[in-house]
Amino acid sequence: MTDIRITGVTITPVAFRDPALLNAVGVHEPFALRAIVEVATDQGVTGLGETYADDGHLRRLRAAADALTGMDVYALGAMHRALAGVLAGDSGTDGSGLTGMITTSSAVDRVFSPFEVACLDIQGKAAGRPVSDLLGGAVRDRVPFSAYLFYKWAGHPGEAPDDWGAALDPEALVAQARRMITEYGFTAIKLKGGVRPPEEEIQAILALREAFPGVPLRLDPNAAWTVPTSIEVARRLEGVLEYLEDPTPGLDGMAGVARETPVPLATNMCVVAFGHLAPAVARGAVRVVLSDHHYWGGLHRSRLLSGICDTFGMGLSMHSNSHLGISLAAMTHLAAATPNLTYACDTHWPWKSEDVVVPGVLGFTDGAVRVPTGPGLGVELDRDALARLHEQYLTCGLRSRDDTGYMRRIDPDYEKKSPRW
Amino acid sequence: MTDIRITGVTITPVAFRDPALLNAVGVHEPFALRAIVEVATDQGVTGLGETYADDGHLRRLRAAADALTGMDVYALGAMHRALAGVLAGDSGTDGSGLTGMITTSSAVDRVFSPFEVACLDIQGKAAGRPVSDLLGGAVRDRVPFSAYLFYKWAGHPGEAPDDWGAALDPEALVAQARRMITEYGFTAIKLKGGVRPPEEEIQAILALREAFPGVPLRLDPNAAWTVPTSIEVARRLEGVLEYLEDPTPGLDGMAGVARETPVPLATNMCVVAFGHLAPAVARGAVRVVLSDHHYWGGLHRSRLLSGICDTFGMGLSMHSNSHLGISLAAMTHLAAATPNLTYACDTHWPWKSEDVVVPGVLGFTDGAVRVPTGPGLGVELDRDALARLHEQYLTCGLRSRDDTGYMRRIDPDYEKKSPRW
Repeated sequence: MTDIRITGVTITPVAFRDPALLNAVGVHEPFALRAIVEVATDQGVTGLGETYADDGHLRRLRAAADALTGMDVYALGAMHRALAGVLAGDSGTDGSGLTGMITTSSAVDRVFSPFEVACLDIQGKAAGRPVSDLLGGAVRDRVPFSAYLFYKWAGHPGEAPDDWGAALDPEALVAQARRMITEYGFTAIKLKGGVRPPEEEIQAILALREAFPGVPLRLDPNAAWTVPTSIEVARRLEGVLEYLEDPTPGLDGMAGVARETPVPLATNMCVVAFGHLAPAVARGAVRVVLSDHHYWGGLHRSRLLSGICDTFGMGLSMHSNSHLGISLAAMTHLAAATPNLTYACDTHWPWKSEDVVVPGVLGFTDGAVRVPTGPGLGVELDRDALARLHEQYLTCGLRSRDDTGYMRRIDPDYEKKSPRW
Repeated sequence: MTDIRITGVTITPVAFRDPALLNAVGVHEPFALRAIVEVATDQGVTGLGETYADDGHLRRLRAAADALTGMDVYALGAMHRALAGVLAGDSGTDGSGLTGMITTSSAVDRVFSPFEVACLDIQGKAAGRPVSDLLGGAVRDRVPFSAYLFYKWAGHPGEAPDDWGAALDPEALVAQARRMITEYGFTAIKLKGGVRPPEEEIQAILALREAFPGVPLRLDPNAAWTVPTSIEVARRLEGVLEYLEDPTPGLDGMAGVARETPVPLATNMCVVAFGHLAPAVARGAVRVVLSDHHYWGGLHRSRLLSGICDTFGMGLSMHSNSHLGISLAAMTHLAAATPNLTYACDTHWPWKSEDVVVPGVLGFTDGAVRVPTGPGLGVELDRDALARLHEQYLTCGLRSRDDTGYMRRIDPDYEKKSPRW
């Protein structure tokens, strides 16, 4: 048996253009940040991972890289344990790249994730098998994603409008959905809410329902509402929404809403770490958990989350942040190997125009990504693109995601409030 | 990418000599039955699994083998799904080889298990890695097992005494433990109880405590006691037992006992399938779950069980039936790759004198088995031994495990009762 030992890790922060997408805590800045993790081994095989690139997270990634160098790429349990040591005492509430919406995920799981993905990429390449095969094998050859609609400005202040234009009312959101569905073939729609007063967002959902009969619809106000507001919105959208995501903050609030509506509640805010599962199950507060391998500790631990959802009668969907092709490949392999992932996954994919991977592998057809069948993740770095996006990181000046701060620079009266309505 | 497709499965039932070990439902018959599963592939690599060999189970294994032939050895999720189809409507309460003590485990998981283990053996051989590496990597290089003490007769009726002799009182059990610890180095002791009246079993545990101070002790009466008896025994053995296993039948009973004693309750009777976990967690009835890959659906699904225990604050140990070397290898790889498996595992290993694997790989030192480091499971079939034990199966006449029936042939007044005291 030949070990495959890690000889070095290269962490490259990159920035890519991001439209002025609005959410419950502000607006996306002109650039989204990601870190590309390249793991090199003594057998010449290399692996890729992708994660957040906020300063605090980059610092932890570098400490982790040092700790993992010399370890065998199959020693995933030992790596997780080593990182728990390295990060002991690190409260880990900064640097998640999740704009303050998710602050209680595990720092160890978040830091471990890109290394685990890279090691699985290496394991897959060494064995000549796609990553999905290392996760129990694909049970579907294409993974459906949803059209992710955003309220948005026409462009960033001081810049020309982007080619999507503004979307601040139901009509514009319907047009946004129509274009996205035409271009990608999506068969489910998610609206990022928490931006306009609840009545307007209800009208937006009803307009989408009318325009796209039969297409599953989801609304995610990111905990912008009180319990009574959430109950009222749920009442109005009963039978219309596939699920309502994080209407209100905290498990108690979610449980209060769940008691009063048959609309399934989903979350990627109050259940974001393994420690949150037992209380959530005990309260029956959540019917659908949105997994995300970036903060659930990689692909194996996301499969554990899936198995827990299956065992405890909760549905499973998949959360997304602004991401590039390495993450889409990882999400697709994971989703393909997860039998109970029965909802179309989230992705910000249509909102980006740049990437670090060689194009071609990850196309969308009929709203789904075909599972890559090459060894490992099946994607390859485009070094010129990586250099370009790294240069963009260096020059863009952003070092941590701050949707609220950006909004305040534009609108000094803007206040971050949860719940807001 | 080259698929590794299953071209055929050979299922060989075998019988090996088993001493007259007593338990709550009778006595072990002169032979224990197991089925050896050999999976052949189009790439020439073969894999091994081991499971029960009761008639009903063999019938299901053969149906499963037909369904899995042609599939890729990495397609574990698809295989599980295929078997769910093959076994749909099969109540699966017979043929578990678990002597009626566990009747509600999942037939699909039980039938899937040996095929999954064999496929992991093949995956490991193909990748040149031990099975533990396919499960996240070993976090320990040796796996501790416990000394598994049994009340027993000197020999089977009509036969000469075996070389362990009779054990029907505390002194004999202490002697049995002493020999087992001398020969294997075990650092934990489990007594299979439910055989003698509770007062005698209490005395046995107290004698073991005196003879082996500091050694963790467990008692497993297999649900032979009422709730009040269980509470009384627990009270008497508080601070003496590491855990008390299945004192009384059912979750309600276990919860009733748990409310009245600080002694941790463990189970491999009322939590034996994923469907049992939510109710067990909701009642807080169980502090330690004994996993067993033979009925929890193989190694990946046993890791899911481990993760669930970790997530929901339950301890994890490992259950054993009479087994051979293929199972010991699988158990050892699984345990090595399971960080939260902090108890010494059960094994019936010292009670058997025959095997189907080439000796040498699975030795015990200081009560632990060194994790095999060769590709796959790391064990190899001894074809002469396999043929001999298969011949023994053909001639021994046993076709299903029936400890109670055997006891009744010896003692016609014997009644199966749970609880008995």
